[in-house]
Amino acid sequence: MVMHKLEVCFSPALFSRFENPQAIVVIIDVLRASSAICTAFANGAETIVPVADATEARELKKKGYLVAAERDGLVLDFADFGNSPFNFTSEKVSGKTIVYSTTNGTRIIDMSAVSYRTVIGTFLNITSLTNWLVSQDHDVILFCAGWKDKFNLEDSICAGAIAERLLGSTVFSTICDSTHASLDLWSHAKNNPVQYIEKAAQRTRLHNNGLDDCIEFCLSSDFTDIIPVIINGQLKGLRPCDL
Amino acid sequence: MVMHKLEVCFSPALFSRFENPQAIVVIIDVLRASSAICTAFANGAETIVPVADATEARELKKKGYLVAAERDGLVLDFADFGNSPFNFTSEKVSGKTIVYSTTNGTRIIDMSAVSYRTVIGTFLNITSLTNWLVSQDHDVILFCAGWKDKFNLEDSICAGAIAERLLGSTVFSTICDSTHASLDLWSHAKNNPVQYIEKAAQRTRLHNNGLDDCIEFCLSSDFTDIIPVIINGQLKGLRPCDL
Repeated sequence: MVMHKLEVCFSPALFSRFENPQAIVVIIDVLRASSAICTAFANGAETIVPVADATEARELKKKGYLVAAERDGLVLDFADFGNSPFNFTSEKVSGKTIVYSTTNGTRIIDMSAVSYRTVIGTFLNITSLTNWLVSQDHDVILFCAGWKDKFNLEDSICAGAIAERLLGSTVFSTICDSTHASLDLWSHAKNNPVQYIEKAAQRTRLHNNGLDDCIEFCLSSDFTDIIPVIINGQLKGLRPCDL
Repeated sequence: MVMHKLEVCFSPALFSRFENPQAIVVIIDVLRASSAICTAFANGAETIVPVADATEARELKKKGYLVAAERDGLVLDFADFGNSPFNFTSEKVSGKTIVYSTTNGTRIIDMSAVSYRTVIGTFLNITSLTNWLVSQDHDVILFCAGWKDKFNLEDSICAGAIAERLLGSTVFSTICDSTHASLDLWSHAKNNPVQYIEKAAQRTRLHNNGLDDCIEFCLSSDFTDIIPVIINGQLKGLRPCDL
């Protein structure tokens, strides 16, 4: 059997060192974009359209789209949602197209366009995601979104949790120090991820803005089996059998 | 008492996010540049002159300087030394100026020139270094050299070992996720750093080139109390009382 390569990239500023046209890239932004996107699709959203520019998002709002738009934890005034997964209820999103204004997210999606395929990963879809990755015949890069290009703990432990499952299969191997570090950090966190994340800078930022109510949910496993996937720059939420 | 900020930067590609003119920057390149530099000064070297360009190093060799020059683990043919600390014996280096050809090292030194002061840190001088840092009235950035801009385990656990001591004083605090990660990785490694580093990519690279004989030494503490410091782009090895 051919072994496939598993790598972890800790920051968008490092991604150029990992580019691999044969790899499936898993974008991880646990607090909170990846978790919000998974929740939106689990609750029936049809399509999510990432846009880099808030002005473009505002124009699309005028045309009748639902718009999610947040900067540094604050919802932009014209938007329907921020980044909390609790915003994306079935009542609001089922059957709808959502415009998602995210400068960093759009940049990361653009970067990963060189890869074979790009999907969104988080604790919320971890079992479905990892089973699907094991069934594919490709290298995998776990691409942590970080915070303003810096390493962060929440994305790294999620990468470690995903890596643990992939390396537990017979399909993947790694010689990547970031992957080993993620595994070791996850081994610290796994007994109580919520408690582990108390020291994370993003947890403090969310707490200071009164936005930390979703942390326990974002760190919980298997809310959905849907895997969000980038198709022509837009996000669709698919079940593994449809990918 | 004013608390000072402690941060860890995992890669040169991330350093622009950490720049702080008030900070002391500690450059960490455990396998093997930092360890070689500490050893050279402990054995009496007078000055180390970093140069980015191998051609410049070759010209300086012709002018009579001792030259250390290595690329990807292989000594350049005109050089006196590679990067092994065991090369820099008292017999060879005492009282001498050494030209050190290092593309990445020179880039890191240039980057850190915005800081208050730049020193070299490693396990070999950890007690002297951390006592000195605690006595200074400055923020500290532990700047891991990494490998071709990627995160590496050996520099990160050294950052964790240094961070553990600094945060154990009453002078430093941190809200930096990379620092927390370094501490957690160090907690995995500290009982047996040599065994921990067996999974590191650099350990494999050194082993494959027959250069891993120095790993145990590079991971051992307190070979010297000398702290190499950058002064006008050149390295001097000073005792804390002279800094």
